Amino acid sequence: MASIFTMIINGEIPSYKVAEDENYYAFLDINPMQKGHTLVVPKREEDYLFDLTDEELAGMMVFAKKVAKAIKKSVPCQRVGVAVLGLDVPHAHIHLVPLVEGNELNFSNPKKQFPKEEMEVCAKLINSNL
Amino acid sequence: MASIFTMIINGEIPSYKVAEDENYYAFLDINPMQKGHTLVVPKREEDYLFDLTDEELAGMMVFAKKVAKAIKKSVPCQRVGVAVLGLDVPHAHIHLVPLVEGNELNFSNPKKQFPKEEMEVCAKLINSNL
Repeated sequence: MASIFTMIINGEIPSYKVAEDENYYAFLDINPMQKGHTLVVPKREEDYLFDLTDEELAGMMVFAKKVAKAIKKSVPCQRVGVAVLGLDVPHAHIHLVPLVEGNELNFSNPKKQFPKEEMEVCAKLINSNL
Repeated sequence: MASIFTMIINGEIPSYKVAEDENYYAFLDINPMQKGHTLVVPKREEDYLFDLTDEELAGMMVFAKKVAKAIKKSVPCQRVGVAVLGLDVPHAHIHLVPLVEGNELNFSNPKKQFPKEEMEVCAKLINSNL
């Protein structure tokens, strides 16, 4: 059975898409720790980030760097933090989280919610800054 | 003035070294979130991870993957989490944190302390599992 992220990549589940290339896909986290919180995933399903091949891992980080720079241009923040846990969805994903206060990289914090329209505008803005 | 991490790399400040190659250096965090919590740094000083060149960033992640796999073999945990904030020390660093409970990737958690001997044994064990 395809992972929820594969279903997102295939368009079977809608997402606020931020960026896509041949091998990777980036979209807004729907339970964000901060506005602009984005998930970067490889199109090839692999549970754990460090089980990707060296080439896939390297490519994913370079893709994530481009996305992070676009997030930084789109969301007022000190910088974009990075986190990988992956204990929830068995499809490797990198969290890119705008650090506004600086303490956002805390998965125990209550998640934020933004209206659909705001999420759409945010995803489009990040995409336009790629 | 050299960053504290450059002084560690140069041996001017002692560290519990875990791994080193031509371009990267890994050592135990002395204020760990979990036993085996390791920092990976590039030898070239750059404040922010995503300001490294694509090649440097890719190489750093492949190096971090090797270290993470050695940590997993050395410290009983579900997997090794990844975090990058970097608001404290202006020298890019990747946190590799064994996720034992799963909620360790929380920089607001109180930090742990282990005796010097235990840190030395831990660093050597990880190194031996590279």
